Amino acid sequence: MGRRIVIIGGVACGPKAAARARRRDPEAEITIVEQGEHVSVGRCGIPYYVGGKVNDIEQLFSSSVGIVRDADFFQGVKNVRVLVKTRADRIDRARKQVHVTDLTTGATETLPYDKLVLSTGARPLRLNIPGVDLNRVHNMWSLSDAKAIRDAAWSGEVGHVVIIGAGLIGLEMAEALLEADIPGAKPEITVVEAMPHIAPSFLDPEMAALVTKHLEAKGLHIRTGELVQRLEGDETDAVRRVVTAQGTYPADLVVAAIGLAPNVDLAREAGLTIGVTGAIAVNQCLETSDPDIYAGGDCVENMSLINCRPVYTPQGSVANRHGRVIGNNLTGMRDVFPGVLGTVIFKVFDFTVGRTGLTESQARDSGHQVETAIVSGADHAHFYPGSGSVVVKLIVHVPTRRVLGAQLVGEGDVNKRLDALVVAATMKATVDHLANFDLAYAPPYNTAMDILHHAANTMRNKLAGLARTVTPVELKDRLASGDNLVVLDVRTQPETEERPAPYKGVTHIPLGQLRNSAGALSGDKTIVSFCQVSLRAWEAQRILEAEGLSNVRFLEGGLAAWPY
Amino acid sequence: MGRRIVIIGGVACGPKAAARARRRDPEAEITIVEQGEHVSVGRCGIPYYVGGKVNDIEQLFSSSVGIVRDADFFQGVKNVRVLVKTRADRIDRARKQVHVTDLTTGATETLPYDKLVLSTGARPLRLNIPGVDLNRVHNMWSLSDAKAIRDAAWSGEVGHVVIIGAGLIGLEMAEALLEADIPGAKPEITVVEAMPHIAPSFLDPEMAALVTKHLEAKGLHIRTGELVQRLEGDETDAVRRVVTAQGTYPADLVVAAIGLAPNVDLAREAGLTIGVTGAIAVNQCLETSDPDIYAGGDCVENMSLINCRPVYTPQGSVANRHGRVIGNNLTGMRDVFPGVLGTVIFKVFDFTVGRTGLTESQARDSGHQVETAIVSGADHAHFYPGSGSVVVKLIVHVPTRRVLGAQLVGEGDVNKRLDALVVAATMKATVDHLANFDLAYAPPYNTAMDILHHAANTMRNKLAGLARTVTPVELKDRLASGDNLVVLDVRTQPETEERPAPYKGVTHIPLGQLRNSAGALSGDKTIVSFCQVSLRAWEAQRILEAEGLSNVRFLEGGLAAWPY
Repeated sequence: MGRRIVIIGGVACGPKAAARARRRDPEAEITIVEQGEHVSVGRCGIPYYVGGKVNDIEQLFSSSVGIVRDADFFQGVKNVRVLVKTRADRIDRARKQVHVTDLTTGATETLPYDKLVLSTGARPLRLNIPGVDLNRVHNMWSLSDAKAIRDAAWSGEVGHVVIIGAGLIGLEMAEALLEADIPGAKPEITVVEAMPHIAPSFLDPEMAALVTKHLEAKGLHIRTGELVQRLEGDETDAVRRVVTAQGTYPADLVVAAIGLAPNVDLAREAGLTIGVTGAIAVNQCLETSDPDIYAGGDCVENMSLINCRPVYTPQGSVANRHGRVIGNNLTGMRDVFPGVLGTVIFKVFDFTVGRTGLTESQARDSGHQVETAIVSGADHAHFYPGSGSVVVKLIVHVPTRRVLGAQLVGEGDVNKRLDALVVAATMKATVDHLANFDLAYAPPYNTAMDILHHAANTMRNKLAGLARTVTPVELKDRLASGDNLVVLDVRTQPETEERPAPYKGVTHIPLGQLRNSAGALSGDKTIVSFCQVSLRAWEAQRILEAEGLSNVRFLEGGLAAWPY
Repeated sequence: MGRRIVIIGGVACGPKAAARARRRDPEAEITIVEQGEHVSVGRCGIPYYVGGKVNDIEQLFSSSVGIVRDADFFQGVKNVRVLVKTRADRIDRARKQVHVTDLTTGATETLPYDKLVLSTGARPLRLNIPGVDLNRVHNMWSLSDAKAIRDAAWSGEVGHVVIIGAGLIGLEMAEALLEADIPGAKPEITVVEAMPHIAPSFLDPEMAALVTKHLEAKGLHIRTGELVQRLEGDETDAVRRVVTAQGTYPADLVVAAIGLAPNVDLAREAGLTIGVTGAIAVNQCLETSDPDIYAGGDCVENMSLINCRPVYTPQGSVANRHGRVIGNNLTGMRDVFPGVLGTVIFKVFDFTVGRTGLTESQARDSGHQVETAIVSGADHAHFYPGSGSVVVKLIVHVPTRRVLGAQLVGEGDVNKRLDALVVAATMKATVDHLANFDLAYAPPYNTAMDILHHAANTMRNKLAGLARTVTPVELKDRLASGDNLVVLDVRTQPETEERPAPYKGVTHIPLGQLRNSAGALSGDKTIVSFCQVSLRAWEAQRILEAEGLSNVRFLEGGLAAWPY
């Protein structure tokens, strides 16, 4: 075919598109233009480089067998020309040319193309406050940011770190720095988030609260609902303090991770359509508004598989899948990238946190009629060593019973339940499907009924009106407002001693005695039962209702999901 | 409603049905009749009790908070009457009565029912050979079997164990006994299997061979294709030898785990329909041929979700889900159990082994037009500590591109990929869906493209005729038959030193030099390229084809999936 393909941007989507195009078409002339020093970078590994789990930064742009994926590699193995430290200045769509500048020599070049790919990526949103130019104030994005932060943290001069932004990158950085094996005294680390809770774009409040509790138990300081107003430095222009409306925090190193913006300047200047999210608009074939120009990776917007709306979800995994679709389409296919769920996973200390699809608030904001269920349980059989707890929040579309989204938190195996839910939500599974999936069971790997089965069944019980619940948020609010509730602990005596109820005035009747003791409970007040995971509390609801009490509810998820 | 419900069998499905019926109907009279001593038993934990990971057998019939689920528990908490050590002798369908005998006192009782549930379970197939009545010859099924085997293994008198049957239970037992912390010299353990490879009902030969290699590396002796002919004992009638047509193996303890048969005598005598698998036939509501009698658990046959054929898949997980559906239907619902995939997972030492859906041989035997792909890779980013290898075999229906089944083996996170495939196969996902699932990615949990994405893409490349491969079995056979191949190792020099190619006469050209060295390769012979996981070998195929060589193939899965 002998086509000339030019790709602007060499981090993830670009190299993938180049490699795929090459495998399909041995004749094409393929050129990657990359402004930075490196191509094919595993940027998601940066927090682990900063924290010292990855010691050699080269690992982030090497293959798994240690081959550095540089320009020579791409030329020798892929027969792809790579121009690093080269900036694309302008796209001339009429002439089908890209004007580029070699940033080392200043030389310019004009690259003709038959097909062009924009994989220009994203950039970190910059703080727009006084003090951002002080020393030791860094955005967290590039390899050079990572080196600077790591060098500062290891310098022995950093007693306090403030991370601005409690999103994915901010939280991963907080974990990395706290776990880093830095000689001398560990720095104190404070995470400041402007929104009312951490991870606001992918966790609902009660799930975020569970994560916050874990972060604080590990020694992080979390300040939410605080907008940073300015950074203050010393006479050497090194940052020393972070000031919010609520307080002042000492800071010898500030890491800003407040979000990403797509790099769309080239596309906009070339007259390509920019979508409502501010990222480049593409169709399902990842074509821009110019059919000779494809775009993928962090510079484009995606379509949500849940509600078909455009979303901006910059992620390395998505960028790689984009690259393959573009590589196919550059070489004569009409391949389709169906869309995304906004799946997110991250590790913070002993917890894994994941979400896919819509959060409850996103689903309600979209106008959907939703029901939710919070369920907690063990990730594998209690009698097999090493089992851990998982809390699942399921969000379901009531009219269709479809799974719209889920959030999972805990030290147990969140990872596997999340991917099962990804597949389920993509395939438009209902909660009834979810209750019956023939998931793998053996004691080292699962309980006989998976926690996803329990979550689905709880949801079905709620939808049928059989299970009547209060959520953790509801119970917290009702307790705070002085509602006259009977809070009923149905755990065993040893359990109540091991983990006392987090609220005074709890009535304690072990489940085994409840049938004989129901008469002692008044029928006037709302009774809210709980246990460790609320399986027994659910049983208690049904027992008390059978005894004629009409206003009984159980606490969703039990103590295992109680974050307050 | 006040219905009388009698449930025969109290291990898994029965108690679940009782508990669910009770939650839905506070008035029903519910009675469980159980022949054994215990109810609600986590029998899947037995190998871990035998091996000592679970020390107290009570844990297997206790809840996660340590409550023993005995008759008193069921009466007090569930208001369910449980008759243990009680045998159901006969069902009188005309009078709607069950005749039972108290095995302790010999007293008989007649239990009237409105609805009856058969959850009579399964029993181990018994060896029908000379010597089975010798001492220290045990089936592996009940808690008393488990106690006897554990006592024997710990007695200090067992130097050699032979396990007959390399299915799920046999292999779990082999692992448990080899890992058991038995004082003194570890027993030598031999597993004898009559079929040509281990786990014959859920693994294809090359996947079984990978597991066998691991088992042997851990010190187990595996003998396949050997039918046991007789057991020989000493003057005390203790077993001492296992004799097959091929050899004689010393044995101071023999554990037989050759399969299960459903307990259908009661059902058959009552005139209920028995299915083609020999288990009780039920419809999707789990009704037997008598609409007042439900059946579930190990005594019934299931429908395969892949091809709608009846299958016999006795499993605790399925039994629990059956129980819930039956509990619903006993109390006025028309709930449906959709069917099974035959999902299996088990742990053997550092390996997890899983399968769902059909194996290749089962799919071909069913008459499907299938394509397969074997792919290996890391379970998470190579630069994050602790990554492990996973080998996936995907089986796809060519006309519809649907996933018919999958097998997974390795020390990496098999568990999560298996459940994602379970959901995918249930929802009738195609290989194109699989290639695009928005699976969770962060370096501790995954690679940017999941191994399932790679497997799907390899399959798509094969279906498109772009990827041309040989499977491990094919290469082994072609090498054995003296085919004149060029076997081309495209790994780096250090890799070839660390893990030499498992075959002499291999040509070694690192991928980076292949474009310049292609001329050295003859076009007459078939070239089979390989590397560690065959990503580079696939690249090599395309490079050599671009250089004009027409008969190039790569080894599926690379060395990581090479079991020979």
